[in-house]
Amino acid sequence: MKEIEGGITSVSGIRATGVASGIKATGAKDLVLIVCDEIATSAGTFTSNKVKSAPVLVSMERIKSGKAQAVVANSGNANACTGEQGLNDARRMAEIAGNELKISSELVLVASTGKIGRTMPMDKVESGIKLAVSQLSYTGGHEAAQAIMTTDTFQKEVAVEFDIQGKKAHIGGMVKGAGMINPNMATMLCFMATDVSIDQSLLQEALKTAVDRSFNMVCIDGDMSTNDTVIILANGKAGNDKINQHNDDYNIFLDALTYSTTKLAKMIAKDGEGATKFIELQIKGAKTEQDARISAHAISRSPLLKCALFGEDPNWGRIMSSLGSSGIEMDQNAVDIWLDDLKIVENGVTTGFKEESAKDVLKKAEYNITIDLKIGNANATLWTCDLSYDYVKINVV
Amino acid sequence: MKEIEGGITSVSGIRATGVASGIKATGAKDLVLIVCDEIATSAGTFTSNKVKSAPVLVSMERIKSGKAQAVVANSGNANACTGEQGLNDARRMAEIAGNELKISSELVLVASTGKIGRTMPMDKVESGIKLAVSQLSYTGGHEAAQAIMTTDTFQKEVAVEFDIQGKKAHIGGMVKGAGMINPNMATMLCFMATDVSIDQSLLQEALKTAVDRSFNMVCIDGDMSTNDTVIILANGKAGNDKINQHNDDYNIFLDALTYSTTKLAKMIAKDGEGATKFIELQIKGAKTEQDARISAHAISRSPLLKCALFGEDPNWGRIMSSLGSSGIEMDQNAVDIWLDDLKIVENGVTTGFKEESAKDVLKKAEYNITIDLKIGNANATLWTCDLSYDYVKINVV
Repeated sequence: MKEIEGGITSVSGIRATGVASGIKATGAKDLVLIVCDEIATSAGTFTSNKVKSAPVLVSMERIKSGKAQAVVANSGNANACTGEQGLNDARRMAEIAGNELKISSELVLVASTGKIGRTMPMDKVESGIKLAVSQLSYTGGHEAAQAIMTTDTFQKEVAVEFDIQGKKAHIGGMVKGAGMINPNMATMLCFMATDVSIDQSLLQEALKTAVDRSFNMVCIDGDMSTNDTVIILANGKAGNDKINQHNDDYNIFLDALTYSTTKLAKMIAKDGEGATKFIELQIKGAKTEQDARISAHAISRSPLLKCALFGEDPNWGRIMSSLGSSGIEMDQNAVDIWLDDLKIVENGVTTGFKEESAKDVLKKAEYNITIDLKIGNANATLWTCDLSYDYVKINVV
Repeated sequence: MKEIEGGITSVSGIRATGVASGIKATGAKDLVLIVCDEIATSAGTFTSNKVKSAPVLVSMERIKSGKAQAVVANSGNANACTGEQGLNDARRMAEIAGNELKISSELVLVASTGKIGRTMPMDKVESGIKLAVSQLSYTGGHEAAQAIMTTDTFQKEVAVEFDIQGKKAHIGGMVKGAGMINPNMATMLCFMATDVSIDQSLLQEALKTAVDRSFNMVCIDGDMSTNDTVIILANGKAGNDKINQHNDDYNIFLDALTYSTTKLAKMIAKDGEGATKFIELQIKGAKTEQDARISAHAISRSPLLKCALFGEDPNWGRIMSSLGSSGIEMDQNAVDIWLDDLKIVENGVTTGFKEESAKDVLKKAEYNITIDLKIGNANATLWTCDLSYDYVKINVV
């Protein structure tokens, strides 16, 4: 497998574009359209928040068919907490796109991100979709990735190429992240495509596995969105015999998909609102994988620790404290902690490390924190960032 | 019951003081001593963090006897994650105090707050305790309350007087709070005394109930400390017949105790690190009391919402989002939300309230947010604050 230049339109048979429809008052791009030449096998994962946006409710319903041909999405308005009107608007977005594309609106998935509680400006959405249809392009992935950005500071795309049954296969995709990112996804919209031919239930299973290992292991601020959506369309253009069991081909696809979603997940952490540090947090030696994941999330959610990381202060006590409050099984006298290769805690107490050596790591823009609980064999890896003045500044409104 | 001027030494037979021992480099007061003339019935609640400081481990062990005569505590060093040495130091603190006071060191409880991971400067602790013993006073409550402060900006004391069996009874106490405050307590040290005569197991039960309704319903930042300690000493000087069942006298005492701890808890929220707003959050109509408490904590822990409150922005979508991600039973189409008396959400969607009216509430230094889930009869009240630039500034080291 190798990474290649590009994004979702690196997959053949996929057209995309992003346009400015006027939903964003700034005039920035805010409407995304992704279209597959033929009906594709589709799978999706959605927010586990009990408050779900209208487009999430509509797409969750439609994904059950396992078939889709287009995705229409907007930034600038979440269409969440908008009641019956919101549901009508989400369905209408799909209907407008379906009509313009001359396909069934049941084959159009919908997603939104932005402020909660405002009804959609449907006149702008309608003209935006019409404009987008007129601009659809086999090289439009970049424009689409731009148009789903909200407080993101850079666009996030990935494309990989790999061999399956001697055929060249591809996965391409885009994501938006930035704030409100945490366990079980966030306002995180991710649209992926692949030319691999694969059974729908295996596509769904692979997507869920890849999301669990990647997007669900990103923590910016501990908040979880009402709008999180990950969608993949598989059009079979690679020409492989359909993957319909857990064989080597499935594993090749799963690895490529996990690589792709992990790459996008790391970009989300790097672009955390106000973030100045990108941290890979590794938990080792936990009793269970669940414990490893829970403790990783608890540590990365601590505002106290995140402020200390922003301040480049080796305040490992805040790691110990978060670990202990996470509720996992642990022995405080067994814990080891490293900053990159510098061991700072052994068996729950300081190693007497030099503060200067710790600061040498902490002043880097990217580093690893490793925690060995030494009571089991389960591991987890999570990507997170610090909490800076700018996070507050970005989120005061 | 009425509130009176004073603090812990408003209870007769209680001496206290606070001195500067040099643990804090600033030269501020950092050592507290509280002594009861006779052996008192004692009860305590401690952090549920699995990483516990040495003094917490020592005091948890000693409180089992139900008897205590003194509390020695320090700020400036948490004596947490300090291994065997830390345990020895915590026991030694009690031993020094016991020797100086000429009482058994088993009757001395210990508490610490400050930075995690550093061993105690025992020479300073020893001379500090000796100085404190020489300064003990029946009016020394204020000095003691000053000496347990860390990032607190004001000292936090309470004293109440109430009638029990025709006798005048009292409760007095002090607390420190500020940062690292959340569910199940925080680095929160609270020392209380009462002259009520009460059975030890009922004292423990009353304390636990009062703490659950007060300190455990304060949320500053979602972090939980390794050092949280609440201790109460009951010396029986009020002269009432010992309370040894759940009768009216017990309820009078419980009400007075809950009033006192609630008063202190609210002071903690008002003095949250960097806080500019004090918010009483009321959850109504939840299916269970646990759901009400869980959702109150989830909402008050949201950095996104807390930043919006700092910015005085009526971003109720962040309330809905936190509510939905808390995992409680709910119907997003049933939720009502008020800012003071202004209803801003009805049945999950905006009431179309005037933004100006909402801002009139949000710009106040203190206000209420009320959420009615309308699916049950359980309620909870929590006190919280906003997240400001200053929170980050205070916590970068």
